[in-house]
Amino acid sequence: MTDDRDARHNDKMRRVQAARRVMMESKTVEKGLLIVHTGAGKGKSTAAFGMAVRAMGHGMKVGVVQFVKGAMTTGEKAIFDAFPELIEFRAMGEGFTWDTQDRARDVAMARTAWEEVQRMLADPDIAMVIADELNIVLRYDYLPIDEVVAVATARAPMKHLVVTGRNAPDALIAAADLVTEMTQVKHPFRAGVKAQAGVEF
Amino acid sequence: MTDDRDARHNDKMRRVQAARRVMMESKTVEKGLLIVHTGAGKGKSTAAFGMAVRAMGHGMKVGVVQFVKGAMTTGEKAIFDAFPELIEFRAMGEGFTWDTQDRARDVAMARTAWEEVQRMLADPDIAMVIADELNIVLRYDYLPIDEVVAVATARAPMKHLVVTGRNAPDALIAAADLVTEMTQVKHPFRAGVKAQAGVEF
Repeated sequence: MTDDRDARHNDKMRRVQAARRVMMESKTVEKGLLIVHTGAGKGKSTAAFGMAVRAMGHGMKVGVVQFVKGAMTTGEKAIFDAFPELIEFRAMGEGFTWDTQDRARDVAMARTAWEEVQRMLADPDIAMVIADELNIVLRYDYLPIDEVVAVATARAPMKHLVVTGRNAPDALIAAADLVTEMTQVKHPFRAGVKAQAGVEF
Repeated sequence: MTDDRDARHNDKMRRVQAARRVMMESKTVEKGLLIVHTGAGKGKSTAAFGMAVRAMGHGMKVGVVQFVKGAMTTGEKAIFDAFPELIEFRAMGEGFTWDTQDRARDVAMARTAWEEVQRMLADPDIAMVIADELNIVLRYDYLPIDEVVAVATARAPMKHLVVTGRNAPDALIAAADLVTEMTQVKHPFRAGVKAQAGVEF
């Protein structure tokens, strides 16, 4: 009985493996990807910083622009600071929009941060640019979506651009190569648990 | 006109900020979280390793057990290797199940990896344990879900346990504090793009 189950399993796995090999061999294109992490769940920025670690481990230099302060936390910063030659980061947001209470200043700040993204995209030494929480800025119309999509699309062919934030605009999703939506299934705030070191910051 | 829009925005943001302050002040509990990253999209393991970086940056030691080889890639490993006192990792899986073709061996391997998770959960020096791709092992019934939930629930109160992998079992979701589903919206493999250094590995 167990032998039977094992034999069926092994047979199935052999077929899956063969199909997977054929699938992988058909993938031959190398290109810089436009990657979007969106959705109301957690993990959008965290996964982007995880990608930064992966790229840095291959000796690829990463540029990070934070459109909203606080997305990259003291936790990541302490580790990234150990690799100054592999990562450049600019915290541009002076606080979440609901803390600044000044739309005109937010618009100006978004513009400055966006110029920093463009500078990193133009830098041949930087292989991956992370525009962290750019979607939030687009959501509030602090930057014109047409301009953002035009710049993203015109970037150098091998450059990876990762954009995070909930409510990614449709035009950005349409232009992207890889889009993942992080959906909240269950959140501990509902049970009165506070933000904790090593988890939220 | 613009002044009007700015005034309305600033007023709205003031109300959002006040509501947020009240919400945050009601959160007072500190506890170790059982966190699950599931779904068919990308970013489950990447976000878990991003959490590892965050925790390590706070001087918290992290333990990682990989149930499926290849989930933590050479990229992350090169960076993590720079902090041997802050991270301990065990790559237990000898290959994705569709590569091993041997159910009995997979079951034994899953058991060994699970014992390693339990050892790390019992180690007071380890603040966060990542059971990477444990859900896949549960999906194939390589380990009894009841046992896994019982151990997860009985862990020390301040210990964080992060479980990744698609198809998280309902019983694990029910026991978890924080569950995020990563949903695939768009994937570059569909356009013939191959797995690339710094992105997939």
